[in-house]
Amino acid sequence: MTISTSYEKMISERMMPLLNNNSAIRTMFEEGKRLAEKYGKENVYDFSLGNPSVPAPEAVNEAICDIVKTEDPVFLHGYMSNAGYEDVRKAVADSLNRRFDTAFNENNILMTVGAASGMNVILKTILDPGDEVIVFAPYFLEYNAYINNYDGKVVIISPDTESFQPKLSEFEEKINKRTKAVIINTPNNPTGVIYSADTLKKIGDILLKKERELGISVVLISDEPYRELAYDGAEVPYVTKFYHNTTVCYSYSKSLSLPGERIGYLVIPDEMDEHEKVFAAATIANRVLGCVNAPSLMQRVIMRCVDEKTDVEAYDRNRKLLYNGLTELGFECVKPEGAFYIFMKTPGGDEKAFIEEAKKENILLVPGSSFACPGYVRIAYCVSYEMIERALPAFKRLAERTIK
Amino acid sequence: MTISTSYEKMISERMMPLLNNNSAIRTMFEEGKRLAEKYGKENVYDFSLGNPSVPAPEAVNEAICDIVKTEDPVFLHGYMSNAGYEDVRKAVADSLNRRFDTAFNENNILMTVGAASGMNVILKTILDPGDEVIVFAPYFLEYNAYINNYDGKVVIISPDTESFQPKLSEFEEKINKRTKAVIINTPNNPTGVIYSADTLKKIGDILLKKERELGISVVLISDEPYRELAYDGAEVPYVTKFYHNTTVCYSYSKSLSLPGERIGYLVIPDEMDEHEKVFAAATIANRVLGCVNAPSLMQRVIMRCVDEKTDVEAYDRNRKLLYNGLTELGFECVKPEGAFYIFMKTPGGDEKAFIEEAKKENILLVPGSSFACPGYVRIAYCVSYEMIERALPAFKRLAERTIK
Repeated sequence: MTISTSYEKMISERMMPLLNNNSAIRTMFEEGKRLAEKYGKENVYDFSLGNPSVPAPEAVNEAICDIVKTEDPVFLHGYMSNAGYEDVRKAVADSLNRRFDTAFNENNILMTVGAASGMNVILKTILDPGDEVIVFAPYFLEYNAYINNYDGKVVIISPDTESFQPKLSEFEEKINKRTKAVIINTPNNPTGVIYSADTLKKIGDILLKKERELGISVVLISDEPYRELAYDGAEVPYVTKFYHNTTVCYSYSKSLSLPGERIGYLVIPDEMDEHEKVFAAATIANRVLGCVNAPSLMQRVIMRCVDEKTDVEAYDRNRKLLYNGLTELGFECVKPEGAFYIFMKTPGGDEKAFIEEAKKENILLVPGSSFACPGYVRIAYCVSYEMIERALPAFKRLAERTIK
Repeated sequence: MTISTSYEKMISERMMPLLNNNSAIRTMFEEGKRLAEKYGKENVYDFSLGNPSVPAPEAVNEAICDIVKTEDPVFLHGYMSNAGYEDVRKAVADSLNRRFDTAFNENNILMTVGAASGMNVILKTILDPGDEVIVFAPYFLEYNAYINNYDGKVVIISPDTESFQPKLSEFEEKINKRTKAVIINTPNNPTGVIYSADTLKKIGDILLKKERELGISVVLISDEPYRELAYDGAEVPYVTKFYHNTTVCYSYSKSLSLPGERIGYLVIPDEMDEHEKVFAAATIANRVLGCVNAPSLMQRVIMRCVDEKTDVEAYDRNRKLLYNGLTELGFECVKPEGAFYIFMKTPGGDEKAFIEEAKKENILLVPGSSFACPGYVRIAYCVSYEMIERALPAFKRLAERTIK
């Protein structure tokens, strides 16, 4: 019963740009699957996706089995408050308080379907059409889609390609009456840099000054899936301490290697303006966006595994092997302090040409333009150590062909 | 560091109506928890929420444990295609084909974070601002929020309170150039009625005629969380057979008693106009709305439990006890054929007064105005048989006070 005609128009105008310009990361992921089928998985070096290579801690799978064996299934798989189970939220708050000397309780924690959903929830809660959201390049380009979902306007701070630290003077200049939110992501995807306490204090001070000067409330959204992934003893300061209107979007995707399970939370501190209203509205946003609540079994797993850790050492070994290997070959990149990405300058500057050259070696990379920073490529080293070892000779050939 | 000032304005204008007029169902759910603490759980008759009382089939918990013990955790908890695992989607398609004689494959199935998320995904995919979406009263008022999320306009077909079947002449009259979608929900929340094959054929014929006449594409969205809950041998015809531009939003919330787990799927048939584009755009919508993908472990559970069934008999016993009990007391309602709700006429017609009277008996009901049909209350009988037995004397006192 195919009734195709010329007049039909199915797709929303707003979706068309997304459809015509689908995520380069996801496109590369699909390309990787195709190449693996063609050449064999071991001969393809897929550095495209931030999919953890370290398995979830044993305690997670043990908790899953134990919970389904011991808890009432009607409770375990049932609806709870849209913000999540209260005891789970309390456990998350307690864990944060222990680790970061904060003073949260269950009314500051809203369980979400990962950090991506948390960001959608808070943006839906606060954005009016035309409100501006500031982001620091390079940044995860999906933020654009999240902001556009609520008719916000993306305002980009240009990258400091020397350090990949935020350009604070440009930041201050771009705050105006329409500024409603600022997104930061530290440890950073794609650069691996961490913002120091000093940098966060400066960001907080600028925001507070501008709030008072302009008579506005600006929400600092801290996207933190990589919080636990820091190397060489680097500290990742807790962002709520530096500015009152901070919300944290957390995910267990990387810290417990559960990206497919879609589990995370939003922190809405007491210090936030109208925090009770914001919490209530965010809870409603979580519901009406269709998530309803974060997956129930995974919430209960988090309660038991709230202080479990992933194997950061494994990523650190990868980081050292790849960073040393690439720089020895003559490639240029800032040494990552956290997360599991290297953001590498493309020899010659033409990232598209470089990515095509890399593909000839079965190396899959993501273009810097996917992070509003062309002339670079992102290399995700959340892969096996052995794959990096196997890939280095391919990178060597690539260096020989591309570094003049 | 509380810096409250008078100028701040945190909440989006679009969220304010939702914040000021929060879901009556969810409010009643919270009220139920409060009353239970005060009077004891056994003395509160909470008929407010569609939270299944039948536990998930044993096979579900067995599958969960077996899967975490046997599958590679990196695969099991990892990212997959945003549409879901291909083998899971194939298993869902095969099951539908076996049961309903359809011809779906994995490219027609998109795994979603429940049906609520599926509805958001398809509405985001197709709606332009000002596009009209037709709903049949009484209906689940959350649809308004879903439609408003994408700046659509809700067009309500008035209820036929004799039969609660759709008023087809009014439906035909209200279709115009701006009509983009129609939502149906059968078996129905809140009335329990099922649309017959004849009714669905009429709906499909009207839509096809109007599509040709007006040169438009209209998507029939079939919200089907209650598909498997049908009594007395009632048939629930498969909606894609009656109209080419049909999408099904399915959920395992009721059929496998997993409402908290947020697992379901969208069906996008080959017969749909531009179906490949619609599938691709819906996959992107699933990603950018922040779900990214349906929870991975639950997807794999669905693959193993795709033909498992809930205990429909338990709900049927409840239905008979409650329907017979209420009608014997003199209350008026259409006998439900499916789902797990009774939509009862309020004696005197003032639902608010009636609900307050019911609360005095610790009976919690949801007002018909929450379904765009005032003068009624919804009674969710997905509760224990014993609770209905205990509640009937309270309903008797309520009848004596309210039925004149």
